Amino acid sequence: MTFLASDNTAGISSEIIKALELANSGYAKAYGADEYTERLTTRFREVFESNDLIVFPVFNGSAANSLALTSLIKPFESVIAHTHSHIERDECGMTEFFTGGKILGVSGEQGRINLQEAESIIQLAQHGGIHHSRPKAISITQPTEEGAIYKIEEIKSLSALAKSYSLYLHMDGARVANAIASLDCKPSEMTWKAGVDVLSFGGTKNGAMLAEAVIFFNPDLAKDFGYMRKRAGQLASKQRFISAQLLALLEHDLWIKNAQHANLMAQKLAQGLRKASEIKILFPVEANSIFVEIPRDMADSLLAKGHYFYSWPLLGRNIYRLVTSFNTLPEDIDCFIDSCT
Amino acid sequence: MTFLASDNTAGISSEIIKALELANSGYAKAYGADEYTERLTTRFREVFESNDLIVFPVFNGSAANSLALTSLIKPFESVIAHTHSHIERDECGMTEFFTGGKILGVSGEQGRINLQEAESIIQLAQHGGIHHSRPKAISITQPTEEGAIYKIEEIKSLSALAKSYSLYLHMDGARVANAIASLDCKPSEMTWKAGVDVLSFGGTKNGAMLAEAVIFFNPDLAKDFGYMRKRAGQLASKQRFISAQLLALLEHDLWIKNAQHANLMAQKLAQGLRKASEIKILFPVEANSIFVEIPRDMADSLLAKGHYFYSWPLLGRNIYRLVTSFNTLPEDIDCFIDSCT
Amino acid sequence: MTFLASDNTAGISSEIIKALELANSGYAKAYGADEYTERLTTRFREVFESNDLIVFPVFNGSAANSLALTSLIKPFESVIAHTHSHIERDECGMTEFFTGGKILGVSGEQGRINLQEAESIIQLAQHGGIHHSRPKAISITQPTEEGAIYKIEEIKSLSALAKSYSLYLHMDGARVANAIASLDCKPSEMTWKAGVDVLSFGGTKNGAMLAEAVIFFNPDLAKDFGYMRKRAGQLASKQRFISAQLLALLEHDLWIKNAQHANLMAQKLAQGLRKASEIKILFPVEANSIFVEIPRDMADSLLAKGHYFYSWPLLGRNIYRLVTSFNTLPEDIDCFIDSCT
Amino acid sequence: MTFLASDNTAGISSEIIKALELANSGYAKAYGADEYTERLTTRFREVFESNDLIVFPVFNGSAANSLALTSLIKPFESVIAHTHSHIERDECGMTEFFTGGKILGVSGEQGRINLQEAESIIQLAQHGGIHHSRPKAISITQPTEEGAIYKIEEIKSLSALAKSYSLYLHMDGARVANAIASLDCKPSEMTWKAGVDVLSFGGTKNGAMLAEAVIFFNPDLAKDFGYMRKRAGQLASKQRFISAQLLALLEHDLWIKNAQHANLMAQKLAQGLRKASEIKILFPVEANSIFVEIPRDMADSLLAKGHYFYSWPLLGRNIYRLVTSFNTLPEDIDCFIDSCT
Repeated sequence: MTFLASDNTAGISSEIIKALELANSGYAKAYGADEYTERLTTRFREVFESNDLIVFPVFNGSAANSLALTSLIKPFESVIAHTHSHIERDECGMTEFFTGGKILGVSGEQGRINLQEAESIIQLAQHGGIHHSRPKAISITQPTEEGAIYKIEEIKSLSALAKSYSLYLHMDGARVANAIASLDCKPSEMTWKAGVDVLSFGGTKNGAMLAEAVIFFNPDLAKDFGYMRKRAGQLASKQRFISAQLLALLEHDLWIKNAQHANLMAQKLAQGLRKASEIKILFPVEANSIFVEIPRDMADSLLAKGHYFYSWPLLGRNIYRLVTSFNTLPEDIDCFIDSCT
Repeated sequence: MTFLASDNTAGISSEIIKALELANSGYAKAYGADEYTERLTTRFREVFESNDLIVFPVFNGSAANSLALTSLIKPFESVIAHTHSHIERDECGMTEFFTGGKILGVSGEQGRINLQEAESIIQLAQHGGIHHSRPKAISITQPTEEGAIYKIEEIKSLSALAKSYSLYLHMDGARVANAIASLDCKPSEMTWKAGVDVLSFGGTKNGAMLAEAVIFFNPDLAKDFGYMRKRAGQLASKQRFISAQLLALLEHDLWIKNAQHANLMAQKLAQGLRKASEIKILFPVEANSIFVEIPRDMADSLLAKGHYFYSWPLLGRNIYRLVTSFNTLPEDIDCFIDSCT
Repeated sequence: MTFLASDNTAGISSEIIKALELANSGYAKAYGADEYTERLTTRFREVFESNDLIVFPVFNGSAANSLALTSLIKPFESVIAHTHSHIERDECGMTEFFTGGKILGVSGEQGRINLQEAESIIQLAQHGGIHHSRPKAISITQPTEEGAIYKIEEIKSLSALAKSYSLYLHMDGARVANAIASLDCKPSEMTWKAGVDVLSFGGTKNGAMLAEAVIFFNPDLAKDFGYMRKRAGQLASKQRFISAQLLALLEHDLWIKNAQHANLMAQKLAQGLRKASEIKILFPVEANSIFVEIPRDMADSLLAKGHYFYSWPLLGRNIYRLVTSFNTLPEDIDCFIDSCT
Repeated sequence: MTFLASDNTAGISSEIIKALELANSGYAKAYGADEYTERLTTRFREVFESNDLIVFPVFNGSAANSLALTSLIKPFESVIAHTHSHIERDECGMTEFFTGGKILGVSGEQGRINLQEAESIIQLAQHGGIHHSRPKAISITQPTEEGAIYKIEEIKSLSALAKSYSLYLHMDGARVANAIASLDCKPSEMTWKAGVDVLSFGGTKNGAMLAEAVIFFNPDLAKDFGYMRKRAGQLASKQRFISAQLLALLEHDLWIKNAQHANLMAQKLAQGLRKASEIKILFPVEANSIFVEIPRDMADSLLAKGHYFYSWPLLGRNIYRLVTSFNTLPEDIDCFIDSCT
């Protein structure tokens, strides 16, 4: 009986529970004026090698993305994103609600934005003038919704495209640690050094209880963000307990270690699945998500045995998504593979 | 030197100017409590053979559509529309701004919604549950943005689809008269008898100065519409002058006659263009818009001669749109054809 | 039988009807790229003695105000306005809808903002920091909703207050001509020379059919206004017919003459009312609105005789508002006074 | 050195930390499909003696209020609230952002809505018809922002007023436990039995880390709330950890005990302050907030000694707010009093 539905079905890293206990000592100023939040900024600056970086903790990834984009586009502007991206498909319209703007969808293999198509869409929108929401940002998901990793060079190319049309570049990093672990690069290399202006930093799927952050590499963009976050209901009064979670993730590279483990479990799972002749793996496995085609009877039987995973009709009939997490055990994988073969 | 850019470059029908003069007599209660608006409702009920119909004049077609949809969907819901529709492509995000909801794009030939694809999209959205904006309306444009006319049976099929998933059916009728003229049907047949719940009735492109209306065939849907229109800045204080324009259009079938003329001029234009060997007509000509491929040099030369029309990059390179109107003269067409051949 | 409910129950100045007829000649580019709109800018620059001024015609005063403020404040900011102002009381929430922001109400005699209270409110809001919508504009109505005229020095004081806190100054000029006529000043003196950044210029209540404009004295503020207007459904396709109305108002000082007449009729009405011992005039009569206390029986009797005017419960029981217009006749006033005495 | 700035500067009850640890066991379905959330509903139904009650956990009180009101009013409607209420003064416009509607402010002693004034405002708004945001809800804060407790009979009177005008009644219960403890009543008596339709249930200020809930006593109102919460970014993926906090509060009456303690400490503080001749207590002390006038020098000296509390300029110069919490110690109070006397 294995949980592979999402990394958000996992619990909390023991290090993070411990950090919450430690943070629960005495009083602290509310709304982010606490020492944990202050240390968080320092720590993020070290980890990302940037002294200008500004961090705003928020409650969840939906908010991190919607608010990051609210800081980048005005209500009459638009953001270029993959048609399968979370901001387009899985937020019940929150991105448009928060930004007031529009998402212009682009296709592309395995959730990666096709650069040529993106450029066409920008040009078409600009041709429409005031009749069309003006493109002002590109948002990429790293790893993508379909488990792919943008190479650093690909991010740089998208950044160059964005810059050449005066657009900003946003990265949805709900699973950012999985990407850094997969590329085995420095955090800076995959983000601001590659041209990312704002990052949604995800903690929840990587072992936190609930902790995400919007990270501005360009501090000018953060100028009024405090107001935006407050107005959107994403300012925690006892913020120290969100900052403490993020701090714990950054200590001793816990965020990378958790992600490495999840990625490794995905590789193990993929290896096992390749032996199951009836199951077809759709894409290269680059992070901690695997998309598979499973015959309907087999999928039903797996679910009936108590394994838990989602069907993925966006990619077609009989397509399913399997996601590993920081606390997936090798024996969980073995158990699932046993049921498949 | 011929204006074929849009029917909104034309002026006002002389009958409508006269109606404005006549309406300018003495005082009238403001905000629609005038006798012109009252007569307008009576007249629309006769013309559409419906005693339940409710009419709300507004300033323009952008507002008619956005407000019609505001009455149909809640902020967490969505409307199914063609990816080339005006509400999706030409409103700078107004549809989302007014409704608070989302547009789910569907493709389909010559601007017509593909029914099977629409059903897939509804099912996919419903599978997403609360994570996806709930589909609550289908919006069709009649004639479409690309000059096609939905047959009455096609509208009925889309209505049946809508009803089977508890969705409403909206018709963007910015050029509704051109469609009725083309189908040579009764207004009721193409609208409520075919399942349309709310119609955006267009006057401006058909000879009015500025006059559009939202027409509810189901009066329950209109219950709070007065508030919605006011809050959106679309309530005219001197509304009699909008109602008088619409009344003039309905008198002696002016709206149909104007549209018949525009359609006829489009046919004449198409005939002439077929003789121009270098020009390719893209679609069947069913209303008053023609889409053509013109070699770049020729197009530049036509524009240089003072002919006025738009390029249409959405459909590809060297594609242009030619639109006739109520006051296009046969000699305008001849003049344009002469330049082409 | 006299219409005194509002200046929007009046019809259209004959000069304006004539201008519409003249404008209805041939084709014109849509969406404001027409020669009437071009001439309008030139004419407004002359009349307001400002070569930088930028004009955007819109459909009505609700939109002029809401959009002017949309250009001044961000969604997390606020506008200081009188608690009795139109933007606060008579727009069904449109100001908040369009701007995304908040109105902070200030009291003050006869609709004029109390400067000391305004300053306190700004300070209180700033004390709240990110928890409070940041004040970014002051909006004044000239003449006020209660018929008062700000003196030029008063406007300058409010402007100085605004500037000292980095706020903009907006003037709701739905009846701007009545104010200029009353002060007998140059348009520039009462607006940009007194510190007004953006003006809602009203034509409809002053003899137009429907024609208002947002006028930016600071062109930097207008940078993205084209997008804002489009997204809000306030861009007329046949804009020449709105521009032509405004041009006609500016020709031969028609706007000032119409307003002078309305103001004069209000003075005549006030004189007559002073003889009616049972009627009490509430405020000095400075423009074309008079607020009166009329015994209930008398008011009912006046309404029963066919006179048309509104009760004004905001100011108390048995309070009524009487408004004269460009086409109020001296005999209309006499007729009403006869009924009162 | 005593923290009296707000109950949100306190930490987490040890019972709640323990509950988080226990909940961190194995996997759980995401987005509220977990057993903790299920048990939470059961527990709330018992505690509030209502089998119809529906619970939606959210992240903070700002969201609980804004979303509760989003379920009650449409964008063209309004909510009656005290001019000093949190939704009006301390949310940077979030209430208007989420609901799309307007807040109509009412005054009243110590934060309590004046019933007669509320009725006048409703009548005035209804007189305005479509020009005025239609009143659809009354929102009361219990205890109020200024530390007062509505008596049950007062709530019933407001509920009767609401019902008589077809309005809903919402209770902002950010400190609801303090009110129940103060009234020493059953939870049902102060809420649905007194006519409350929707309650914002506060946990964070009462010892939770971050945990609030929207509680619907009328399940019809909750029909589409799942969509609203998701679109607003208030759906936790690992929701079990919010539900577990709320469950822990309800276990063994922890919520009431924590509140009783805070209230008791406020009484102790008030007693002490009464001995400080220079300090004036503004209102009766009914819950855990005390408003005092302190000479400026004394206040500065207290702050310089490290005591932490907020000035409250809304109530005047030299006014300060002192708030006790579940973990305020008697010696903290003594220490503060010592500094005052």
